[in-house]
Amino acid sequence: MSKSEPLFGRIALIGLGLIGGSIGHAVKRAGLAGHVAGFARSKETRARALEIGFIDSAHESAAEAAQDADLVILCVPVGALGPSAKEIEPALKKGAILTDVGSVKTAVVRDVGPYVPSGVHFIPGHPIAGTEESGPDAGFAELFDNRWCILTPVPGTEAEAIKALTAFWEGCGSNVDVMESKHHDLVFAIVSHLPHLIAYNIVGTATDLEKVTQSEVIKYAASGFRDFTRLAASDPTMWRDVFLNNREAVLEMLGRFSEDLAALQRAIRWGDGDMLFDLFTRTRAVRRSIIDAGQDTDAPNFGRNPTHAKSVSKK
Amino acid sequence: MSKSEPLFGRIALIGLGLIGGSIGHAVKRAGLAGHVAGFARSKETRARALEIGFIDSAHESAAEAAQDADLVILCVPVGALGPSAKEIEPALKKGAILTDVGSVKTAVVRDVGPYVPSGVHFIPGHPIAGTEESGPDAGFAELFDNRWCILTPVPGTEAEAIKALTAFWEGCGSNVDVMESKHHDLVFAIVSHLPHLIAYNIVGTATDLEKVTQSEVIKYAASGFRDFTRLAASDPTMWRDVFLNNREAVLEMLGRFSEDLAALQRAIRWGDGDMLFDLFTRTRAVRRSIIDAGQDTDAPNFGRNPTHAKSVSKK
Ligand SMILES: NC(=O)c1ccc[n+]([C@@H]2O[C@H](COP(=O)([O-])OP(=O)(O)OC[C@H]3O[C@@H](n4cnc5c(N)ncnc54)[C@H](OP(=O)(O)O)[C@@H]3O)[C@@H](O)[C@H]2O)c1
Ligand SMILES: NC(=O)c1ccc[n+]([C@@H]2O[C@H](COP(=O)([O-])OP(=O)(O)OC[C@H]3O[C@@H](n4cnc5c(N)ncnc54)[C@H](OP(=O)(O)O)[C@@H]3O)[C@@H](O)[C@H]2O)c1
Repeated sequence: MSKSEPLFGRIALIGLGLIGGSIGHAVKRAGLAGHVAGFARSKETRARALEIGFIDSAHESAAEAAQDADLVILCVPVGALGPSAKEIEPALKKGAILTDVGSVKTAVVRDVGPYVPSGVHFIPGHPIAGTEESGPDAGFAELFDNRWCILTPVPGTEAEAIKALTAFWEGCGSNVDVMESKHHDLVFAIVSHLPHLIAYNIVGTATDLEKVTQSEVIKYAASGFRDFTRLAASDPTMWRDVFLNNREAVLEMLGRFSEDLAALQRAIRWGDGDMLFDLFTRTRAVRRSIIDAGQDTDAPNFGRNPTHAKSVSKK
Repeated sequence: MSKSEPLFGRIALIGLGLIGGSIGHAVKRAGLAGHVAGFARSKETRARALEIGFIDSAHESAAEAAQDADLVILCVPVGALGPSAKEIEPALKKGAILTDVGSVKTAVVRDVGPYVPSGVHFIPGHPIAGTEESGPDAGFAELFDNRWCILTPVPGTEAEAIKALTAFWEGCGSNVDVMESKHHDLVFAIVSHLPHLIAYNIVGTATDLEKVTQSEVIKYAASGFRDFTRLAASDPTMWRDVFLNNREAVLEMLGRFSEDLAALQRAIRWGDGDMLFDLFTRTRAVRRSIIDAGQDTDAPNFGRNPTHAKSVSKK
């Protein structure tokens, strides 16, 4: 991608946190746009985004940022997507592509759909990349590199528009997948939403016991617990909105999880070591597949000093 | 600790995997022993341990390794501790210290206690350090650095023996805590055993669905799921033994977890965003405390390229 031929003349980022910021950085890195306009609720975020330099202009209203844009990307929490779309509706130009990065998709079609003017191409999207941090300082250009970005266009969406948005995400370093929004929500209920829910829950349980103090939990966290605290430190607003907007799929997966957990509980109570051993052997193989698929590294992260550890153990 | 004044003349390691191996490396690093004798079940492990060099002599029986040792450390799975103790009983010399590294402690007192000859000091122990790897190649000298090691001596244990074992673990880089075995088991049921159980369970659930394929789960694992797969890749034998031997405490904590999860499930079903937001805010603070306590780093690990990420976002 050469900097002299940007894919889009003007891109508008509505929301300038981790994801909006990372998109801005990635657009700059690859020269994907002639101009990046940005909007965030707070003055501080807008000023900081300009200072870091991942937007070219900051605007006091979302509509102003979206004005004349060829690509508008909504990068706000899922619950704020509908209101944001409503706000920019009058400003959207004919032929523009409107997309979002929300972690649920069926609710977005429901909430944003009504505000899409005819002639504007609305294509919901979800980059599968993130960190546990948020805000304009959290973003970086490499966030999307070799990660997936999922598009969930509604039937009838113009192929050219999907192609342009695909090229955009590829320019940001992603691989692009297309699927139905309902299937997306089911897949992410199990690979993302339920893991976060479980993590939030166990951190809540562990710090609300009578017989074990919170300081003991913190002191000995390295023995397993700490791995959940990272997920459980994710942004409260974003995650509240995810659970409120992907209710059915999350409840379905939670039902399965609880059923399986009840079976494990029985195995422990009855001392069924074979059942435990079989499950623990099966799950070990899953990790291997994830590493083989390039979705994680196999450096022994529990030690949290992986490079050193490896070199020492080879002595 | 100078290499010319070892704390113990002869140390015997019964079990030469991640923990036994790491102890061997740490003993060598600090010169804590005149001689390290090792035993493992398999010829391969014994040969590999000698080759790596974290033991000085390999023995075909545990009793032979323990013969004349001043300190004997049982580093085998919890279910093998009793049988190992029985085997070495006749070989233990008067005044020797016998300890273990098992992840549960009340069951160890029950299983090993009967085989402790009079005049031998039995002090159960548990180093709070590990990785998701196992076997003789997994160990490294730094594993215990700045981690805790918990001793759970039974009432009446000689203070001098506790002092010597404390000095040993400090020589390995650890900080030492003393607590009752029953309390230990409750604390680790929540900070370690339940997190592993939950991780095993969710990996099991996610890879056993009809509507979402295993390859989808693997492909999109980076969105949360992968963080559980590390814990769920831990050694099946070790963890089967942990759950079979800390049944009551694990079931108690699992009961609390399930109760809290049911409340979360209701909040999602009823759309109670405030309840979700409050919990997610509280759990975020817990992570902060864990980082402040030096039990984890705050590099944004979800991105899995933390150093680079940080430097880029500061540009
Ligand atoms: N974090 C992840 O791992 C991840 C991954 C994939 C997708 N997503 C999705 O990406 C979107 C943004 O997440 P993020 O991680 O970038 O969050 P973030 O870092 O917290 O940034 C959110 C941005 O949205 C703005 N905002 C928040 N509430 C708003 C409201 N009610 N109305 C208008 N603007 C509002 C914020 O403005 P101020 O700065 O002024 O507060 C901020 O600029 C969410 O829909 C999320 O589901 C996140
Ligand atoms: N891994 C952790 O994170 C961690 C942390 C703290 C405490 N611990 C505790 O440390 C102990 C050892 O764990 P590890 O991680 O070092 O395991 P590991 O790497 O799998 O090593 C286990 C060692 O014990 C031997 N062994 C296995 N089963 C045996 C049996 N039935 N009889 C005699 N020897 C047997 C193995 O012999 P072969 O090599 O010949 O198979 C191997 O040398 C366990 O009690 C565990 O609870 C583990």
